[in-house]
Amino acid sequence: MPLIQVWMRKGKPSAYKAAISESIHQAMMSVMKLPGDDYFQVTHELEEENYIFDPNYFGMPRSPDFLMIRLSFNARPAAMKQALFEAIADNLVASPGLRREDLGMSIVETTFENWWAHGRRVDNDTGTDSRIGKA
Amino acid sequence: MPLIQVWMRKGKPSAYKAAISESIHQAMMSVMKLPGDDYFQVTHELEEENYIFDPNYFGMPRSPDFLMIRLSFNARPAAMKQALFEAIADNLVASPGLRREDLGMSIVETTFENWWAHGRRVDNDTGTDSRIGKA
Amino acid sequence: MPLIQVWMRKGKPSAYKAAISESIHQAMMSVMKLPGDDYFQVTHELEEENYIFDPNYFGMPRSPDFLMIRLSFNARPAAMKQALFEAIADNLVASPGLRREDLGMSIVETTFENWWAHGRRVDNDTGTDSRIGKA
Repeated sequence: MPLIQVWMRKGKPSAYKAAISESIHQAMMSVMKLPGDDYFQVTHELEEENYIFDPNYFGMPRSPDFLMIRLSFNARPAAMKQALFEAIADNLVASPGLRREDLGMSIVETTFENWWAHGRRVDNDTGTDSRIGKA
Repeated sequence: MPLIQVWMRKGKPSAYKAAISESIHQAMMSVMKLPGDDYFQVTHELEEENYIFDPNYFGMPRSPDFLMIRLSFNARPAAMKQALFEAIADNLVASPGLRREDLGMSIVETTFENWWAHGRRVDNDTGTDSRIGKA
Repeated sequence: MPLIQVWMRKGKPSAYKAAISESIHQAMMSVMKLPGDDYFQVTHELEEENYIFDPNYFGMPRSPDFLMIRLSFNARPAAMKQALFEAIADNLVASPGLRREDLGMSIVETTFENWWAHGRRVDNDTGTDSRIGKA
């Protein structure tokens, strides 16, 4: 039951925002083996003056399309997190067509006991949702 | 000094939102023994296309009233966190009348040194606010 | 690559919001030795009914100007975090002229591997961005 937060500048069409959401979700499913219905994302569209970033970062220009993504979920191995970042970036480059320079991502990890949803089933052997793959 | 974030679909009346806030706050006080003035909540009301969740989760239908709550505070024992989740769910079912299936909650724990408020008093013996109960 | 979130009541002029952003950024640079372009902040302006805090906290009155700041970055020593809190408070008192009683701050620390930006360079010896000072 991850929580995904996206921040972006206001004013993009619905299809563009839907493509962002779908691209992230597909990466979560393919890399973390989440079930398709384990899907929760919030998008915060902000006015330019409330969405502040340097137009250059490490010498690379950022455009107004710059997107910040925060992912929250239970602790995962470093290699899986790295694979997730790359899959999200690849998917967003493909659709809606973002530049890699216009992406920032971060993960906040918590423990399994820190999530609650009605009817959520816990596998006592693995400490994870019983439906989630072991990959 | 917890920070509580609530996400919901836009358009609910003020009384409905106030009931959500009060239900969460009452649970924080009763389970975590917070003083009544230790109250901080932000509610993000989002357009439908910016508030994305699967209409079914683990086989249970979610309605447009689905509410996501994130609680941030210092580390607490697992049993207290579980009791808090249940108290919040119970309170929200009672007022404003949410279904348990329409609730998602997560906790981000930090250390005591990671909070700042002017005049905040620290109990060096317990590492907590000196006013907060030991429960 | 920190992520800074600011919550405030809606309706302040642009110059006021820009002063808040600049005051926080200056403190990040001076205390944490971040490069100037390592700058990312989102400001959430909320309606009064969506921005809830007790008008008194620990016996001190809070005004409608109350500001909540969340800082997310890699783990830092406690002394540096304390210095950062004080520097941010000092800067915000100076500009835009906030009262210390109207400030709340918290930090969420993550590991270095939990951040991604295209072209980000990692110093394998220190586990930090190679450009960031060691202070």
